Amino acid sequence: MRPLKMSEPYVLINDDLVPAEKASLLVSDLAIQRGYGIFDFFKALHHTPVFIDEHLDRFFHSAAELRLPIGKNREELAALLQTLMQKNGFPHSGIRLTLTGGYSSDGYELEKPNLIITQKSLSLTFRENLQKGLRLVSYPHQRQMPEVKTIDYLMAIWLQPYIRQNGADDVLYLRDGVVLECPRSNFFIVTGRDTLVTPSRYVLKGIIRMKVLELAGKQFRVEERDITLEEARAAKEAFITSTTKHILPVWSLDGQPIGEGRPGKVSQWLSDELERAMPAF
Amino acid sequence: MRPLKMSEPYVLINDDLVPAEKASLLVSDLAIQRGYGIFDFFKALHHTPVFIDEHLDRFFHSAAELRLPIGKNREELAALLQTLMQKNGFPHSGIRLTLTGGYSSDGYELEKPNLIITQKSLSLTFRENLQKGLRLVSYPHQRQMPEVKTIDYLMAIWLQPYIRQNGADDVLYLRDGVVLECPRSNFFIVTGRDTLVTPSRYVLKGIIRMKVLELAGKQFRVEERDITLEEARAAKEAFITSTTKHILPVWSLDGQPIGEGRPGKVSQWLSDELERAMPAF
Repeated sequence: MRPLKMSEPYVLINDDLVPAEKASLLVSDLAIQRGYGIFDFFKALHHTPVFIDEHLDRFFHSAAELRLPIGKNREELAALLQTLMQKNGFPHSGIRLTLTGGYSSDGYELEKPNLIITQKSLSLTFRENLQKGLRLVSYPHQRQMPEVKTIDYLMAIWLQPYIRQNGADDVLYLRDGVVLECPRSNFFIVTGRDTLVTPSRYVLKGIIRMKVLELAGKQFRVEERDITLEEARAAKEAFITSTTKHILPVWSLDGQPIGEGRPGKVSQWLSDELERAMPAF
Repeated sequence: MRPLKMSEPYVLINDDLVPAEKASLLVSDLAIQRGYGIFDFFKALHHTPVFIDEHLDRFFHSAAELRLPIGKNREELAALLQTLMQKNGFPHSGIRLTLTGGYSSDGYELEKPNLIITQKSLSLTFRENLQKGLRLVSYPHQRQMPEVKTIDYLMAIWLQPYIRQNGADDVLYLRDGVVLECPRSNFFIVTGRDTLVTPSRYVLKGIIRMKVLELAGKQFRVEERDITLEEARAAKEAFITSTTKHILPVWSLDGQPIGEGRPGKVSQWLSDELERAMPAF
């Protein structure tokens, strides 16, 4: 998904609508000083936020885990989102809510958090994506506080050259020989017996991950459990899920092919079902 | 060390001097989006930066490790520091250099980094500190990329209530039963045989740590190696070192007393020597 145009969308900083080119935080904010903050990200299609309840649930959960008071209830937050969407008028977009540690006078103590809501126009390229597929390379790392959607992507960004050097498109984190997640997506395999498996521990519980587990339960056996690197490499199908990419097949892991180089039967079925579960898509 | 007054020091953002209340970054900066950045922090006493060569060495090292071009050589950076110090005129101060991932259009790819230099006035309370001492509580955690001074203090800030609930002043990170470092300082013990020991691996190599190792080598046996939690608890003396606090005795670890509740012989000697090594103090 690429932005259609970058021409100055508006941004919400706390309660103020400001043009993106002026949307700023003071450098005393704990996101800048100490990397302390959380966020969430969802799509709006045809002016309608997708899975918004689930994303707001997670945003409130992340904020509570990091002890960041949002200062608004759910209805107030939803109203702010409406204000921003109306102002920008993008039919399809990605919307990001960020909540930081606030302006700290000593650079360490939490203060009143700053809430930032940004929106970017998106084009609809969903079906193409499914045909593309990803090459993954594994790397030993576990995110800090993995079940919280923090702004910590230090390793993810630092690993970009490693990914390119290994001829891959993204990295799959490993913990003691067990696969976890990609920096911005969850990882699934389909076993030889058509069982859908995804890691249960030390990962962020993605919204699309949750939807896929729900949908798959109607048709397939589903397991949330540890997956070793060996089992992942030997999978019949593998795919990742994310709000941005929905379902994307994994063609290879550490250079070793997975599946047949086109979307597997189960991946295809889930992708179709997911599409139907999304509004007016 | 507390700021004497908070009245609007100037801040350098790239090449611009701006009042602190206007010193800001756009929200597209990767520090805010992804927690990606590095920093360094040093003191200036009587208008003279302390151990500036060592701090600049580390700043350039951290920037290189995170692939963040500073865009200035050492002389240009030193000149910028002079400009800021002259503008603010604080006799004693703490100066922080921060380098972020820059304004990223896709929120992920590194762009031209933003350089921020802030300065805060400090009072001289060095000798008092030595009498205070710290109570530490251990916690299993290892910083990501521990030898790089990144802005990642997610766990450090998140652990503040844990520290208070355990009646402690700071946390000592543990890895597999081996003590590492505090979030903003290095940890040392003195053994029953007056050997000075500090962890060698998985820690940030502090500038005061380096100076203490140099000074101690004149008088004591010095070892850089793993220290188990048990050995730390049984130490004759323990102390932490940092640019802000210099040398500060550790009175207890996980509620178990260390030493005699006053600065130990070796800690005191090192503190005196360190004081002499600092300019006109």
